[in-house]
Amino acid sequence: MKKIQGGVCAPLGYKANGVHCGIRKNKTKRDLSLIVSEVRAAAACVYTQNLVKGAPILVTKKHVADGYAQAIVCNSGNANTCNADGEQIAEGMCGLVQENAGVAAGDVIVASTGVIGQPLSLDPIAEGMPALVAGLSQDGSGLAAQGIMTTDTIPKEIAYSFTLGGKECRIGAIGKGVGMINPNMATMLIFVTTDAAISPSMLQKALSADVKDSFNMVSVDGDTSTNDMVSVLANGMAGNAVITESGKDFAAFRKALNKVTTYWCRKIAGDGEGATKLLECKVAGAKNKAAAKTVAKSVIKSSLFKAAMFGADANWGRVLCAIGYSGAPVDVTKVSVDFKSRAGSIAVCRGGSGIPFSEEEAKKVLSEKEIEVLIGLGDGNGKATAWGCDLTYEYVKINGDYRT
Amino acid sequence: MKKIQGGVCAPLGYKANGVHCGIRKNKTKRDLSLIVSEVRAAAACVYTQNLVKGAPILVTKKHVADGYAQAIVCNSGNANTCNADGEQIAEGMCGLVQENAGVAAGDVIVASTGVIGQPLSLDPIAEGMPALVAGLSQDGSGLAAQGIMTTDTIPKEIAYSFTLGGKECRIGAIGKGVGMINPNMATMLIFVTTDAAISPSMLQKALSADVKDSFNMVSVDGDTSTNDMVSVLANGMAGNAVITESGKDFAAFRKALNKVTTYWCRKIAGDGEGATKLLECKVAGAKNKAAAKTVAKSVIKSSLFKAAMFGADANWGRVLCAIGYSGAPVDVTKVSVDFKSRAGSIAVCRGGSGIPFSEEEAKKVLSEKEIEVLIGLGDGNGKATAWGCDLTYEYVKINGDYRT
Repeated sequence: MKKIQGGVCAPLGYKANGVHCGIRKNKTKRDLSLIVSEVRAAAACVYTQNLVKGAPILVTKKHVADGYAQAIVCNSGNANTCNADGEQIAEGMCGLVQENAGVAAGDVIVASTGVIGQPLSLDPIAEGMPALVAGLSQDGSGLAAQGIMTTDTIPKEIAYSFTLGGKECRIGAIGKGVGMINPNMATMLIFVTTDAAISPSMLQKALSADVKDSFNMVSVDGDTSTNDMVSVLANGMAGNAVITESGKDFAAFRKALNKVTTYWCRKIAGDGEGATKLLECKVAGAKNKAAAKTVAKSVIKSSLFKAAMFGADANWGRVLCAIGYSGAPVDVTKVSVDFKSRAGSIAVCRGGSGIPFSEEEAKKVLSEKEIEVLIGLGDGNGKATAWGCDLTYEYVKINGDYRT
Repeated sequence: MKKIQGGVCAPLGYKANGVHCGIRKNKTKRDLSLIVSEVRAAAACVYTQNLVKGAPILVTKKHVADGYAQAIVCNSGNANTCNADGEQIAEGMCGLVQENAGVAAGDVIVASTGVIGQPLSLDPIAEGMPALVAGLSQDGSGLAAQGIMTTDTIPKEIAYSFTLGGKECRIGAIGKGVGMINPNMATMLIFVTTDAAISPSMLQKALSADVKDSFNMVSVDGDTSTNDMVSVLANGMAGNAVITESGKDFAAFRKALNKVTTYWCRKIAGDGEGATKLLECKVAGAKNKAAAKTVAKSVIKSSLFKAAMFGADANWGRVLCAIGYSGAPVDVTKVSVDFKSRAGSIAVCRGGSGIPFSEEEAKKVLSEKEIEVLIGLGDGNGKATAWGCDLTYEYVKINGDYRT
């Protein structure tokens, strides 16, 4: 697998663009993005589990019900959620793509990210669409990545090449998250494209299995948004034999997909609102995988642990505390904890009790930008990794500011 | 029911004291407290659900297994948790009470609050115990309240008088929490005394039922500590007919107990680490009580909602978001949200969608010290209240500081 340039346009047959159409007041910020495949593509999506769902999610579900799609349109600055006319507006956005780009509205995936509960007008989108479509290009992935940003500090894109049955394939993605721009925005959106040929059902199978260990193991603030969505388009233009069942090719595709999703987990957590550090919690020795995941997620979500990491404080008692209330079956007397980073690694807890360590050394380890918390449960073979970030003044500032 | 002075010494037959014995470095801070009843008292306790439990909790469980106790000893500055010799030290504290105050060690409730995973020496406790016992007095509740403080900004005590079968009874309490002093401390401790006569089993029944709607509905940071404990001593010195079964007296006792516990819920949440505001989330119209509690707790725990309240931002989308991911059965299209405080009340959401409101008016309502979030689910008769506080820079500062 090789890292390549081009983001969502790295796979064959995709063009993209992002423009400022006027949803956001700041004219230097792009707020409308479009990705179009030359041909209809197999499509798979996963959505937020929040009962309050953004209108675009409801519309997208209908549009990909047949397993295919050809374009993705997404605006930032407004989540189009909790609005009485939300679905109508989301359908309107797809209609505008049909009018201007010639892709059937029913083949458009639509997404919105921004403030919840403020009416979204179709006017700026209608005004911006012709330029958006006219500017579609194979170099447009970066512009599209910009158009979906909210509090993200950098546009995010990635692409890899890989091989299926001797054919070179490519997989790329843009995404945004995690956080809220002006308060009320909490959406993670990831759009993945590939030129691999794979049936819709196998594509969905690959994505659904993947998110359990990737996106579902990320937490910035424990708040599950109303608009989260990950979608994959697979247009088959690489010319490989279509994947229609499990086997070597499906495994290779899943590996490539996981390479992309794991990249995003780290990227999203590390760019979490106000974050100064990426935290990676690796649990081993759990009774089973479910227990490992529960423990890893509990630690990565603990406000106290997150604040300690911000302070570069080797406060392992908080790790034990979060393990203890996670609900997972754990023998506390077998727990070990180590902190690790580029600066080295340090053991702080064995057998559930503290062991002597150098505070100076620990501070050095924890002052790095990427910290691993290694937890051993000594109770089986279950393993899991969760990603998160530290809790900082900046998080409070970003989310305590007035919307107005 | 009448509010009275005297805290844990307001009921007949109790003395208390608090001293500085040297566990904490700061000599102006008391770190050891004792409450003693003249006679053995019915005793009931509830403990943290964290699998990692402080050693004092394990020892206390043994000591109150017979339903009786006569004294409560508690230190601050060290949680005596995750220490290999923890139980031995906790037993040692009880032994010191026996030696100096003549109360059998097996009748002592012991508690500790402070840093997790640092060895606790018995030496300062042995040194301080004679003066602690010598100073026991009916005016000592305030000193005892000081001796158990960690990051609390004020010592906390309360007392009420009430009537059981024509006899005047009293109930009082001291407590601490919620938070961490230097990082690693997360303990809520509440010690309740009463001179009402009630059997141990009915006392435990009253306490266990009460906490489900009181303490279990409080959250400052979502981190369940390893040392939480609420204990009640009932020494019967008021002379009422002993309560041994459900009925009018038991109901009156439960009401008095609930008056005290609800006071603590508000007090603890309002003094949560770094908090500038007490948040009270009142849910009505839920399918059932369990659903109401789940929704109230989900909203009160949301970091995004808490940060919005810090910013006095009427960010109701975050309330909807937290309702949506709570896991409770909710018909989103029926949800209403209002914010209320001394400055007035303001409706912001009806039928799951936003309604026009004055941002200026909302800011006025949310700039008060005590905020109510009123949620209507329009789906039944289930009601619940949860208490919490805002998320502030100060919370991050308190918990990001180095222990060292």
